[in-house]
Amino acid sequence: MALSGIRVIDLTRILAGPFCTLLLADMGAEVIKVESAKGGDPIRRQGAIKDGLSWYFAQFNRNKKSILLDLYSDEGKADLALLLEDADVLVENYRPGVLAKMGFPPERLKQINPRLIHASVSGYGSSGPYVDRPSFDFIAQAMSGFMSVNGSPEGDPMRGAPPMSDLIAGLYCAFGVVTALQARERTGEGQMVETSLTNGLISMMAYLSAQYFATGKVPERTGNNHPIVAPYGLFPARDGMVAVAPSNDVFVHRFLGVLGLEHILEEDRFRTNADRMANRSALLEIVNEVTKTETVDHWIDVINAAGCPCGRVQNLEEVFNDPQVLSQEMVLEADQPGYGRVKMTGFPVKLSDTPAKLHRPAPKLGEHTEEVLGALKKR
Amino acid sequence: MALSGIRVIDLTRILAGPFCTLLLADMGAEVIKVESAKGGDPIRRQGAIKDGLSWYFAQFNRNKKSILLDLYSDEGKADLALLLEDADVLVENYRPGVLAKMGFPPERLKQINPRLIHASVSGYGSSGPYVDRPSFDFIAQAMSGFMSVNGSPEGDPMRGAPPMSDLIAGLYCAFGVVTALQARERTGEGQMVETSLTNGLISMMAYLSAQYFATGKVPERTGNNHPIVAPYGLFPARDGMVAVAPSNDVFVHRFLGVLGLEHILEEDRFRTNADRMANRSALLEIVNEVTKTETVDHWIDVINAAGCPCGRVQNLEEVFNDPQVLSQEMVLEADQPGYGRVKMTGFPVKLSDTPAKLHRPAPKLGEHTEEVLGALKKR
Repeated sequence: MALSGIRVIDLTRILAGPFCTLLLADMGAEVIKVESAKGGDPIRRQGAIKDGLSWYFAQFNRNKKSILLDLYSDEGKADLALLLEDADVLVENYRPGVLAKMGFPPERLKQINPRLIHASVSGYGSSGPYVDRPSFDFIAQAMSGFMSVNGSPEGDPMRGAPPMSDLIAGLYCAFGVVTALQARERTGEGQMVETSLTNGLISMMAYLSAQYFATGKVPERTGNNHPIVAPYGLFPARDGMVAVAPSNDVFVHRFLGVLGLEHILEEDRFRTNADRMANRSALLEIVNEVTKTETVDHWIDVINAAGCPCGRVQNLEEVFNDPQVLSQEMVLEADQPGYGRVKMTGFPVKLSDTPAKLHRPAPKLGEHTEEVLGALKKR
Repeated sequence: MALSGIRVIDLTRILAGPFCTLLLADMGAEVIKVESAKGGDPIRRQGAIKDGLSWYFAQFNRNKKSILLDLYSDEGKADLALLLEDADVLVENYRPGVLAKMGFPPERLKQINPRLIHASVSGYGSSGPYVDRPSFDFIAQAMSGFMSVNGSPEGDPMRGAPPMSDLIAGLYCAFGVVTALQARERTGEGQMVETSLTNGLISMMAYLSAQYFATGKVPERTGNNHPIVAPYGLFPARDGMVAVAPSNDVFVHRFLGVLGLEHILEEDRFRTNADRMANRSALLEIVNEVTKTETVDHWIDVINAAGCPCGRVQNLEEVFNDPQVLSQEMVLEADQPGYGRVKMTGFPVKLSDTPAKLHRPAPKLGEHTEEVLGALKKR
């Protein structure tokens, strides 16, 4: 596998850190999840629990090993030092400074293993006025500006439903770790990799941030309507909603052509995008009258066939039964000893020669303590 | 820099692909953006334009070079083949099959350069029933299930404001490329890296997908209210909204303690989280009465000081003037020849020894054609 031979010591819990190490583990890194005997990662008891197993935990911790260490005890700290001696990567999501207080400041990590890459995911980064503040996804969504632009103009600022800031920070962290591994090929040395929930989400503001920087105008919530293009968005079909994204005149002609409405683009009120924006309500009334007459399936077929992006607003049941999603192997089943088959999402990055694999189910708490620590102590 | 010496040939346009190559360029890879003489990347003319420069383009294409090639001509194709001979990575976001039709099927790429990593970002992946459908961010948000859970329960399925699926697919692609570089250190060979807008966003459904898999129940939109915890969300202060995220009883005690309301947790109706969920309206009424009496600033100070995550719902003006965001260098200024200083977002991944840098401004269309192709032809 792509990251075979890379050993990761994982002190993280909950979501951002475990998502980072999941991405590394899926690519073949040996991830050793260090947990406390007091129940380990809280996610073991959260999310959807079935027959005593958290499927949320199983999804985010597949392909990892678990060992028990009491990092408050001298023995636990000594074991961690031993582990770090021949590890490649340490990932942690403590608040900045906590690892140093536990006896592992940067200079000691360097002394233990100069090739070690130390990756940290925090709420706000490792310095600055908010360094001591706790954070969670909801707060990062608020502080990053994401909520200020998400949602409809009439409503409140709106949280993004999935824990976006955790997942994006975890993904950035995995990218940073592999980039630091690549740098180490040349320098022979490890280094520190830092990501944060807030910085990660800020970097995703894309044209919204560019708009603010260029004009000084604060972007507002625009809901499902495209801020500067019409027609665009959700349209009513006979049996549901259909999403159509004609992002420029070429696509608009294709879309309205399929509806048999291309002629209205010759009217003054609908000729240019500016005209259509000025008369958006009238335009949508005409378009909706036609889209209502056929099914979602029909529109998806004919609008895509005309070369205009179009799709269904799928709920998660539809997503995970969609023939394309299944064909892309985005649903996996892990054989979880004692629990049977557990379904989870598949791999978003496909490598042709060294593909990601399900190589072990999520570990029982401390399942690999003996195996991992025993081997270390025998050296 | 971390990726110094890595040469990337970039055939992408718009957003997902250019975001992937931006992340590589920021880390020091030499990214050669191949553009057509007919105006190049459409983003050059989109987003916020100031004095003729798209600040959106400048943000997403800093640190890259630009060359002109007509990939429909034999000469352009021959030049591309020359470029690929000693490149490390090719990134493209054509629809699956298009690159092969242009004369570069996988076996030819392998023949030209067996060490070449070929990365592709597409709408739905490179196989399956929807392989020929066009896609855009809006459609991927619909097809992935993201829109079905985003937004308020009373409203329509809601698009996430930033182009999340593009950015996440681009970030996954960058992770995949560097992972393939790492694999190449051992195997000596390149391989194919595939990501898609839809798969990327599906992989972000986190506990929502786990809930569906474990229970068969379809997750619904819950707006800003936490689906299973109360109190949690946005609270009215004297001068705005404050976001508070007390995700378990410990945090609830801290939060209500700060409000002087800890005693209500002794009432039967508010004792456990289940009680508080059952009586959420009554609870929020009591809490809001208190939060209304002080400012957002006040609550942020005292609630964080008590160890409960809390923040401001910031708009982008507040974000980019926030002392923490500035201290984290999340606002950069590029010196754009002919246009003066251009502001853009900073680097979300901080490496201590080989940090990301602004090493060149976004290129003029074709600015490096002579430099790059001239050097190739002299070999």
